Parts: sequence; C-alpha cells; structure tokens
Amino acid sequence: MNAAQARAAIRGGTHRGTTAGLAADFVQVNLIVVPTDWADDVAQLCARNPVPCPLVDRTEPGSVTTWVAGGSDLRTDIPGYRLWENGELVARSTDARAWWRDDLVAFLIGCSFTFEAALVRAGLAPRHLAAGTTVPMYRTNVPLASAGRLHGRMVVSMRPYPAHEIDRVRAVTRPFVLGHGEPFWAGDPAVLGITDLNSPNEGDPVEVAPGEVPVFWGCGVTPQLVAIESRLPYAITHEPGMMFITDLPAGGQTSPQ
Amino acid sequence: MNAAQARAAIRGGTHRGTTAGLAADFVQVNLIVVPTDWADDVAQLCARNPVPCPLVDRTEPGSVTTWVAGGSDLRTDIPGYRLWENGELVARSTDARAWWRDDLVAFLIGCSFTFEAALVRAGLAPRHLAAGTTVPMYRTNVPLASAGRLHGRMVVSMRPYPAHEIDRVRAVTRPFVLGHGEPFWAGDPAVLGITDLNSPNEGDPVEVAPGEVPVFWGCGVTPQLVAIESRLPYAITHEPGMMFITDLPAGGQTSPQ
Repeated sequence: MNAAQARAAIRGGTHRGTTAGLAADFVQVNLIVVPTDWADDVAQLCARNPVPCPLVDRTEPGSVTTWVAGGSDLRTDIPGYRLWENGELVARSTDARAWWRDDLVAFLIGCSFTFEAALVRAGLAPRHLAAGTTVPMYRTNVPLASAGRLHGRMVVSMRPYPAHEIDRVRAVTRPFVLGHGEPFWAGDPAVLGITDLNSPNEGDPVEVAPGEVPVFWGCGVTPQLVAIESRLPYAITHEPGMMFITDLPAGGQTSPQ
Repeated sequence: MNAAQARAAIRGGTHRGTTAGLAADFVQVNLIVVPTDWADDVAQLCARNPVPCPLVDRTEPGSVTTWVAGGSDLRTDIPGYRLWENGELVARSTDARAWWRDDLVAFLIGCSFTFEAALVRAGLAPRHLAAGTTVPMYRTNVPLASAGRLHGRMVVSMRPYPAHEIDRVRAVTRPFVLGHGEPFWAGDPAVLGITDLNSPNEGDPVEVAPGEVPVFWGCGVTPQLVAIESRLPYAITHEPGMMFITDLPAGGQTSPQ
C-alpha cells in the first residue's frame, strides 16, 4: 500500500487505530495545529529541540493540506485527533473538520516509526512490533529548551535491546534525523525521571528482559505535553500511535523487490 | 579594538584573564579539541543539542587555525587552556602548543557573550558586567541528547532579571542563534537540578534581588562536562570565561559611531 492509498483508507474509515507498519516505506509524522499567533513559538521550539521535535513541514495559515502529501486533508487523514483548550484535553474524534479554523497553522513533526523498518532489516526488530502493541511512551522530567511562551518536558519512546547491540542500534537509527535519530539515552530510566517502565503514559508496556537495557528516543508526542504545561489556548493534535502518513520515502525498501 | 588586535594582545601576553567585553563587536566562541576518531561524535552532539552547543566551525585534522579568524592560532590566542585525559583535568596553561597533535580536530561553539552587548543596548545590562565579575555557570542534571559514545548533562549561565522584563530579554537574545539564543529556562533553579545559586561551578555568584527571577541560558562549557562524563580520552578546551575571539560580527555596533 502506498501513502496515498493509506490516507484514503483512513479517510474512508476502512483503516482505524495505530498506523504502525502501515505504508511502511513512507515517513509518518506527528501533528500539532495552533493559532497563527503561536506559530512562531512552535517553530522556535522545534528548532531548539530537534531531537524530540524534528520539523518536517509548517503550513500556511488556514491550509488543510501539506506539500509532503499530495491530495491529503490534514483534518481527516489521521485515524484519531485530540482537541486541547488551555492545556486541557477537551475532545477526541476521528474527524477534525469541525475544529479547524482559518487562523490555524499545522506543524508536522517526525516520528520514530520511520526508523523501525530499518531496525527490522538489521535484525533488530523492536519487541512491540512482534507483540502487535503500540510502542510505550513516557513523560520525562527533562526540560526542553523553552521558546517564547512555550516550555515543557520531553516525551520519549522506549525499545529494549541487549547491551551489546546498542552501538548497532545507534548506527542504524542515527541517519534518520527527521525521525528522532539515534537514542536520546540508553540506560537507567531514573536519569530521565521515569520511575516505572511498566506504566507508560501512552502506548503499551513491553518486557525488558534480563541483560537488556531500556533504550529511549525523543518522541513527537512531546508538543502535547508542551500544550499542557504551557496552557496553550487552542491546539489540535493526533492521537499517539495514530500518525499522518506523508509521501516522503522512509529511506529504504521494506520488501525485497 | 578589533578581533585581530585582541587575539594579538592575548597571544603576546598583554591581555590576560576573561575576554568579556573585549572586542565586543565580534563573536566569541568556546573551544573543544578532540582526536579525529571522536570528531563525528562531537559534531553529532552539537547538531542534536544546538542550544548549549551551537556549532560555529569544525577544523580539518591538524589545523591550528580557522576560517572565522584570519591569521589566528587556536593554540595561543585564548588566555587560558585546559587539558583533559580520560575525563580528568590534567593540566592548565596559557599556551596549548605543546599539547597539539596532528590528529586533532577543533570545534568552535557559540558563547552568550555575543548577546550581552545587545542586552546592554536594550537597557538590560547583565549584573555581572557592572560588578566586573565572570557570569556564573552551573552544572545541571538536564541530560543532553546523547551522540555515539558521548553523553552528559548541560551547563547553563545565569543572569537575574525582574519578572516583567523576561519577555523583553527573550526577544533581545532570541536572534543570537549561534550564541545560545533565548533563555533555556527562567524560574525555579530546581527544575534544572541546581540547588544553590550562590555556588556556581564556574564564574562568580551574582545577587538575585527580591522580585527578580534567575534566567538561564545554554552554555558552551557543556562539552567540558561531556568530556568528564563520557571519559573522553584526550581533549583540549578553553578556561571558562576566556574565549576565542573570531572575526565574525556580533550583530550590532556597541559604540554610536
């Protein structure tokens, strides 16, 4: 399935839930949509925090599409949306058309799904893929570089690996600069202020087996925590794990042909 | 005094100590010099942590000069150097020629001195300038985005300001992207893991008066903490507060003509 077909399936309601593994040859992205008045602060936040918030596109005010996905509609082509007001989650929907306004600017932010196919090809398949679950995501106590009126803490995703594989995991994921790149941290979760790996804030827990190390990557859910902590007056985001699929190639074929 | 004159005064021993306020129309930078084998990791660390580590130049292996400072010698044109081995500070000198090797690569990293002249012009002179002391710098518990074999925590500089001036301080310093830009954080030092503002790790303490907020910027001393925490086998750095002065214009005239 190519990216346009995947977006059509989501828009038509025939694909629901997580986009992990869907149209895996194409870059998937996180979404945050804010009023124009806040757009420069979001852009600055991304520029100053490129590991959790790698910026893929910023739309013109009022636009409902993006150059990285031909014929797309940002309001309908994601399986799930969240509406935030003054930092509070006020609504959830599979369709954001009723929430869109002429003064809104959308930011597309890279996603770690992009490098997962490369990990699979390298024989380093993340455990949650085999389990058919959503990668676990955690709120940390790591402060971001603030930007104007925006501040907050980083969200990370976690995939466990044997200690002797971590150098190879770094090497495989390092090139995916728009997909968070190499791990932010590998080791003791307490360094990031995470107290219980079994209780992720989003996604599902995965086992960390004896001899394995939890490996953490920046996560594009971070702007949602920024919206909460900065009490952003109005924002639309995706549901974690349900991404927008772009036409950008993910950097490698997942099937042999 | 222009930048070349300042470098000559340092090289000749007629200027010693901090470079704050010296040739203030020109960009000053931090220095870290590492073996070629480590250079890509340092470059990656800078790319992933642009607020504490804004990269201004990376030299060719063995070079002792940089295109951003004509006729300069990186081994002699800084008032003070530190030599690190396996993460330990092993020597200090005003002359790094005896420590240089053919396999070394120098990284020049931006410095907050660059925006201080702009703060002065805006009527927001940092207190340590009036006191004639070196800006206080603190080791935080904020983890950097790791890069290859390098990890560590951020160092910040601090300047106190009245709460009502912080928006203006942000606006004045935001454009200086190669000089750490706007504040990383303004408010409770405990958010960064700083327990005692009166005990900076480098520089001198400054008073935070009633009604003032401590305002923290990323600091180019950060790579020295990375060298310590990552046990970098060999590195040469500057002494904090004693910078390399480039020929790059700092973005504004400090005198009326």
